[in-house]
Amino acid sequence: MPDDQPQLTDLASLGEFGLIEHLTRNIHIQHKSTKKGIGDDAAVIQPKTGKQLLISKDLLIEGVHFDLMYMPLKHLGYKAAVVNFSDIVAMNGVAKQIIVGIGVSSKFSIEALDEIYSGIKKACEVYQVDFVGGDTSSSLSGLLISVTVVGEADKDKVTYRSGGKPNDLLCVSGDLGGAYMGLLVLEREKKAFQANPDMQPELTGNDYILERQLKPEAREDIVRMLEEKSIIPSSMIDISDGLASEAIHLCKSSNTGCVIFEDKIPIDQGTYDSAKEFGLVPSITALNGGEDYELLFTIDQGDYKKIENDPDITVIGYMTEPSDGMRLVTPDERSIELQAQGWDAMRKRELGV
Amino acid sequence: MPDDQPQLTDLASLGEFGLIEHLTRNIHIQHKSTKKGIGDDAAVIQPKTGKQLLISKDLLIEGVHFDLMYMPLKHLGYKAAVVNFSDIVAMNGVAKQIIVGIGVSSKFSIEALDEIYSGIKKACEVYQVDFVGGDTSSSLSGLLISVTVVGEADKDKVTYRSGGKPNDLLCVSGDLGGAYMGLLVLEREKKAFQANPDMQPELTGNDYILERQLKPEAREDIVRMLEEKSIIPSSMIDISDGLASEAIHLCKSSNTGCVIFEDKIPIDQGTYDSAKEFGLVPSITALNGGEDYELLFTIDQGDYKKIENDPDITVIGYMTEPSDGMRLVTPDERSIELQAQGWDAMRKRELGV
Repeated sequence: MPDDQPQLTDLASLGEFGLIEHLTRNIHIQHKSTKKGIGDDAAVIQPKTGKQLLISKDLLIEGVHFDLMYMPLKHLGYKAAVVNFSDIVAMNGVAKQIIVGIGVSSKFSIEALDEIYSGIKKACEVYQVDFVGGDTSSSLSGLLISVTVVGEADKDKVTYRSGGKPNDLLCVSGDLGGAYMGLLVLEREKKAFQANPDMQPELTGNDYILERQLKPEAREDIVRMLEEKSIIPSSMIDISDGLASEAIHLCKSSNTGCVIFEDKIPIDQGTYDSAKEFGLVPSITALNGGEDYELLFTIDQGDYKKIENDPDITVIGYMTEPSDGMRLVTPDERSIELQAQGWDAMRKRELGV
Repeated sequence: MPDDQPQLTDLASLGEFGLIEHLTRNIHIQHKSTKKGIGDDAAVIQPKTGKQLLISKDLLIEGVHFDLMYMPLKHLGYKAAVVNFSDIVAMNGVAKQIIVGIGVSSKFSIEALDEIYSGIKKACEVYQVDFVGGDTSSSLSGLLISVTVVGEADKDKVTYRSGGKPNDLLCVSGDLGGAYMGLLVLEREKKAFQANPDMQPELTGNDYILERQLKPEAREDIVRMLEEKSIIPSSMIDISDGLASEAIHLCKSSNTGCVIFEDKIPIDQGTYDSAKEFGLVPSITALNGGEDYELLFTIDQGDYKKIENDPDITVIGYMTEPSDGMRLVTPDERSIELQAQGWDAMRKRELGV
């Protein structure tokens, strides 16, 4: 074995309990509400008086939700944690504890698991979340990660999908479509690599959209901003599928219609250029792409003054009576029905599953 | 297709959201503490004042944790829920909410998923647990079930593995070894069937051990009994691996040694007979078998009078100073070191993984 090749360690070499001990070393509990983390039959949490607990859960499966050919393991761990933090944020809450289950086939080494765990631990550090439970099991094929996150929010601030009212403003944080364009670039380079393994991937100039795909963030900063400005959104959801699909979820849960102005949808220049390069309409990547993990929320018109100068919030439309339907107004002022293509469907087509 | 063959429905036919809606229909929330169940970004729980929350999580993977050749899907759903309830019970708590993620390959029909969900719903009914979140994802190979359970316990009654003290009595609920013997019978009949598919399985007379394997229960009744008798165990764990492995966990966490009297280990007659038939020492199935989901706990000697006539509790030994080690006293009064063979290891050997 050449000197520059790291020696990889077989998973079985540590034994089941040794492996868990190895992976969960150096984990420190920072929240007072965490009474017991790893090492018993269950984690124990003592919620603060007046707080409600928010619980979110996700299952990520190799070949369905991620492709290890271009997803570095550390990023995968980070992203697995963050997408669940994002669900808590979408309830106007803050993530506090995480429990992770990993199923892994024998093709993975301890060093590979270390990478995944280091990504999860990094996310815990950035978002100040306690890692309170982790277990690892064998899997017959590939990798799967099951994450449960516990968060909290003041009882009177928990925001559901269902509270939107006609005339509420429909707002979105950050910009959209980047994560999907990042995925397209990665898949293009994967195909080029498969055709010619000597070829170097062409990733330069795509930093922003690649980071959007490989290292998304949960918009906890928006939750804090809303609190500072004394805004409680009437409804909120995070954008894991496309904007269209999530807007339809909000409208259906709130029993409203909506109008979205296509030219108000915030799109970064890098996303725009990349979409053009791929021959796509940029706004379609925002409407039907996914994994941006921005927040889509509605606020009372009376709160407009509080956010109008925030560069990170864009008003893209408003809620209407349910009988008005869910509409997209194009730049040439046609009003068409909002359609959820959904990122899941697109992705599954890409992966052929 | 013959008339008596039920028509099976392709998973894709309902679409992602239609499928979730189909599977989670008829779910009713019964606990006041459940503020929001299925249908938002996260479940919302309002814990009662003075209660601590207990969170347990498990990942069950086809071919590793279960074999669909002899595990009926409804039983699998029931068991997936119950083994997590058991983790909550092992903290001296009561399960209140469950969230389930299922990964499923296209070989499964909607009717198959219905069966799994009906088992989970049945467990929720029996244990009065609210089903607050469920999602289904495709998997490239086989079935996997990821379960998160939230429970609660009075702050001063939460029981850890770590509170055992020298001279505390070591107690076990119910009887042990049955689930492992049930597994051996099922695997014997599977092999016979594979050798000759016309053969009828020989399962008669094995009802008790088969039920122990296929339909285990969480001993919530023991938690209630302890409360009625004002006993707070000093330490507790549920027996998912063998008794030996779990006793070692308690001792290590509590920093004690222990003495277990082999002839005190409670073994049902059916388990005993079946072990003999397989040429096994019955107590070994209890010490090294697994999945009995009974409780192993320690109590102060002063509480002995309260449990001495309880037919469901057996005192099998006591805790000692750590320097005395963890010992098993055989019927011929030899004292040998307690060894954790562990059911996981046995099972993995059986399955060849």
